Amino acid sequence: MTSQELFGQIAAKKSFLCVGLDTDVRKIPAHLKDSDDAIFEFNRAIIDATAPFTVAYKPNLAFYEAAGLDGWRAFEKTVAYLRSEYPEMFVIADAKRGDIGNTSQMYARTFFETVDVDSVTLSPYMGLDTVAPFLQYPGKWATILALTSNASASDFETEQTTSGERLYEVVLRKSKQWGSVDNIMYVVGATKAEMLSSIREIVPNHFLLVPGVGAQGGSLSEVARYGMNDRCGLLVNSSRAIIYADQSERFAEAAGQAAKEMRDQMAVLLEECLKR
Amino acid sequence: MTSQELFGQIAAKKSFLCVGLDTDVRKIPAHLKDSDDAIFEFNRAIIDATAPFTVAYKPNLAFYEAAGLDGWRAFEKTVAYLRSEYPEMFVIADAKRGDIGNTSQMYARTFFETVDVDSVTLSPYMGLDTVAPFLQYPGKWATILALTSNASASDFETEQTTSGERLYEVVLRKSKQWGSVDNIMYVVGATKAEMLSSIREIVPNHFLLVPGVGAQGGSLSEVARYGMNDRCGLLVNSSRAIIYADQSERFAEAAGQAAKEMRDQMAVLLEECLKR
Repeated sequence: MTSQELFGQIAAKKSFLCVGLDTDVRKIPAHLKDSDDAIFEFNRAIIDATAPFTVAYKPNLAFYEAAGLDGWRAFEKTVAYLRSEYPEMFVIADAKRGDIGNTSQMYARTFFETVDVDSVTLSPYMGLDTVAPFLQYPGKWATILALTSNASASDFETEQTTSGERLYEVVLRKSKQWGSVDNIMYVVGATKAEMLSSIREIVPNHFLLVPGVGAQGGSLSEVARYGMNDRCGLLVNSSRAIIYADQSERFAEAAGQAAKEMRDQMAVLLEECLKR
Repeated sequence: MTSQELFGQIAAKKSFLCVGLDTDVRKIPAHLKDSDDAIFEFNRAIIDATAPFTVAYKPNLAFYEAAGLDGWRAFEKTVAYLRSEYPEMFVIADAKRGDIGNTSQMYARTFFETVDVDSVTLSPYMGLDTVAPFLQYPGKWATILALTSNASASDFETEQTTSGERLYEVVLRKSKQWGSVDNIMYVVGATKAEMLSSIREIVPNHFLLVPGVGAQGGSLSEVARYGMNDRCGLLVNSSRAIIYADQSERFAEAAGQAAKEMRDQMAVLLEECLKR
């Protein structure tokens, strides 16, 4: 998918919502738990309910791996279901991989061949070698960690370097040269909305994947104010606030409603942006 | 396992070798490929042949994930086999995970509960939040990336900070306060052997996991010269040079021979170190 195609989806749906599929088998509603494939059944119901309001899904690999083989199978089935039923969706494997050489090639093969997602989240610590194999696949993306929303982001990400930049700014400046706006996007935490302005100075045209709106305390309007560009340039992720909106038999309906409410807010923000 | 127990294994076997199980299904000898579980069968033969000369094994998750469900099953079976047949081995899941909060907890649960390894390699980019959940498990370890052996390590790891340190030195200095020599070790690439001296100034007593000896060009004696401390303090990993020493039906025998040759070199270096 190109960035123009992603923007096309955003404009059509009036939404830049990404639903995070952080599916914790321990939080699945009781009536689903007896299913042979509870994680997948939960995801399918969530996807069907939220798809009208969503342009992207982000399965969080940790949750699937923690369930062992059954979890990995549920991840593969979830991606296959998205591909067959909602081929227009942008699917991000939130795996935060970061390795080199033939190992990194193996990860790219896993996520772009064995499982067919659009992008994988990657840690930049080890540099270009971590990212390059992912950029060899036409139409596929690398989603690189830049400035995250967790408290300990200040341990290293904001370390001041002698270039006058903080580490995450060095990451943005160097890594944007490795690819283009059509195959690199960045993770930028919503709790640092005011820092989005300085990030936009370095990467004005790249898509930013913004987690941390809702459960982690970030504000959607702040994110849009500081982070939106003239082709939106944002995917805002929400996980728990949508998929666990309700834990009864009504969970899917409640998730759809929560996604619709975010979409409605996004539609207003998008309209303002596109008028500029 | 404590660092003292790990050193006990090293002293008993006169080896600080870690065999990297980067098992690529495409490189498995032809006669094994028809097996239902070729990856595991290959690993079992490699383990049985190399165990007398080895104190640690490091399955590289990328290779298992690339084979999908079968790969994940082979990883689980390999760890279970090590646990039952060679319980004294230190097992490192080379997964280079790095996430936060409940996601990081999920990864810790995966590797320390669902699969029972001793340590997981972690990327420090997102700070303490990435590592903390792994340190909650008594006897388990975090193996944190510090200075890696790949070319693009110079993109960010060696970035000069205003504290006067390079980024990997900041990582070492801060992260060593998160745990102890009994639950944190560091990845330091062998191709930077002379930099081991300055690393030893920051973390004199921690174990270092050193990849890149052999195939990636590092020298074992240089690593020992600059990196060894009075309780060895090193695990030197070799993957391809051992597990693909031969690709015929003799592969396991050849792997055992390659491991024995490294052990013999290590025995000499260890004796010199322990005399100091």
